[in-house]
Amino acid sequence: MRVLLCDDGLSFDPAYPDPEPTSGEALVRVTLAGICNTDLELIKGYMGFRGVLGHEFVGIVEASPDAALLGQRVVGEINAYCGECPTCLAGRPSHCPHRTTLGISGRDGAFADFLTLPAHLLHLAPETVSDRSAVFTEPLAAALQIPEQVALRPTDRVVVLGDGKLGLLVAQVLALTGCHLVAVGRHDSKLDILRRRGIAVRLAGETLSAGEADIVVECTGSSGGFAAARHLLRPRGTLVLKSTYHGLTSLDLSSLVVDEIAVVGSRCGPFAPALRLLAAGLVDVEPFVDAVYPLDEGLAAFERAATRGTLKVLLSMN
Amino acid sequence: MRVLLCDDGLSFDPAYPDPEPTSGEALVRVTLAGICNTDLELIKGYMGFRGVLGHEFVGIVEASPDAALLGQRVVGEINAYCGECPTCLAGRPSHCPHRTTLGISGRDGAFADFLTLPAHLLHLAPETVSDRSAVFTEPLAAALQIPEQVALRPTDRVVVLGDGKLGLLVAQVLALTGCHLVAVGRHDSKLDILRRRGIAVRLAGETLSAGEADIVVECTGSSGGFAAARHLLRPRGTLVLKSTYHGLTSLDLSSLVVDEIAVVGSRCGPFAPALRLLAAGLVDVEPFVDAVYPLDEGLAAFERAATRGTLKVLLSMN
Repeated sequence: MRVLLCDDGLSFDPAYPDPEPTSGEALVRVTLAGICNTDLELIKGYMGFRGVLGHEFVGIVEASPDAALLGQRVVGEINAYCGECPTCLAGRPSHCPHRTTLGISGRDGAFADFLTLPAHLLHLAPETVSDRSAVFTEPLAAALQIPEQVALRPTDRVVVLGDGKLGLLVAQVLALTGCHLVAVGRHDSKLDILRRRGIAVRLAGETLSAGEADIVVECTGSSGGFAAARHLLRPRGTLVLKSTYHGLTSLDLSSLVVDEIAVVGSRCGPFAPALRLLAAGLVDVEPFVDAVYPLDEGLAAFERAATRGTLKVLLSMN
Repeated sequence: MRVLLCDDGLSFDPAYPDPEPTSGEALVRVTLAGICNTDLELIKGYMGFRGVLGHEFVGIVEASPDAALLGQRVVGEINAYCGECPTCLAGRPSHCPHRTTLGISGRDGAFADFLTLPAHLLHLAPETVSDRSAVFTEPLAAALQIPEQVALRPTDRVVVLGDGKLGLLVAQVLALTGCHLVAVGRHDSKLDILRRRGIAVRLAGETLSAGEADIVVECTGSSGGFAAARHLLRPRGTLVLKSTYHGLTSLDLSSLVVDEIAVVGSRCGPFAPALRLLAAGLVDVEPFVDAVYPLDEGLAAFERAATRGTLKVLLSMN
């Protein structure tokens, strides 16, 4: 099959072996997949991953131990956990130390004609949700991990930093609480997607009051984001970290003690509510799509995805 | 009056002007005061403080707008807040942006014959609590700030890093929850104080299981403490920061995202429960006292306090 391979950079392989589902796994024919910032970091060496990239996808189930899934259009959770270790049994399967993660760690991913995943990780894509929307289920679930971890009140003053895909998804999700939300970004065209939904936006550089936000979500994907978020936060405020990137950041930890700041790392989230929000039309993702490339032109797709100002590049396997 | 002054280092001044209480303030004759690590950091330039040092004290009220306090033995909260700003009215007076902090910021402190504080910040020292115990009310309150901020369960696996005064107080307070607690330090003699109370201890360097603790409290007072604490923490665990020190620390923020770690800065805490624990004998502080110096020998007292292995040095004003 055709794949995009992460292995000292990125390459296209037209004749990679087809995956063979093991016990409990389904075989999925991928139809559409999304390139994520994490993919761009992975090809720079983040996590040391070698294998087929890709963890945002929609596809059709071609083989499955669960017959109800056969022929169905699905999306899939990306952390394949063991289900038996203390971490899994404590209710934290996405942190299972034995887990593999689709296209990120120990498991070939979705930039391919086929992938395999444990069948219980697949979710039916609702009929009313297009492929171009359903492919955003995974990052939308990641945005929904924030209200899973942090109690958000409708009266909270919330700032979202970063107008990449994740920032725009986080802003849309948090706006549904009715909170006093400001989204900060560098691209007027991206912020327009939020403006159209009535969300207040600011261009980076415009003045925001320091020390007034109850919650700041850092989605800039750069090490400077922490200091910017910290600056906006009130004492005892919460700084939610969503960005992952290669490298270290220098911090004044004592200032976190003096102001009693809580910093919360936040990663993958729940798929079912993400699909409910997409089906209800409460989140708008199709405007994120800048381009769709055939899988054969995957290298060009990555170049486009890495270009400053690009929002979402999709890969089509048809 | 006699004072220890922080002003480009530390000096003893035998003829500093007596403080004059303003409206709402009490005048306290200090009898005993404790040297804290924060004092050692302040004379190195932390916070840029200039003035009389000292924020842990016991004293006798000599003048007060509240007649019930006159002649009483008291301890005092250190954050003098305005009570009128949005931060105070939101229930976070210890973070009031207009606050002064006794011996730390904008307000002369307790290494002096007299100090002034708003009368409502004073608490009566229970009769059964000696001066040598009552002088620990402020750091014990800081330890009690942890259960104010973080939900601790009796089944939690908790590690306290650091066997300085704060670490020993934190360990004693957290042990009262019945949690599975291990205190880690560098000094057998200090850890003995905990051993005598049945608390499990380890010398730094002894192996502790990585990635298993639900909560780690960082009280080492050094920038290496963060990495050590992080190493012990399970995914979705909580790292409580208590140390304040001058300087920056380099962190891998992405690892906090991947493991969804919560970092919680924790500072000053509630005095009333601290006094209740001292009165009930549930916390043992007198063994912390390594030496008591007269105020006139304050410079020697600071030298002793800064000597590796020293726990608590007190200053007596009598």
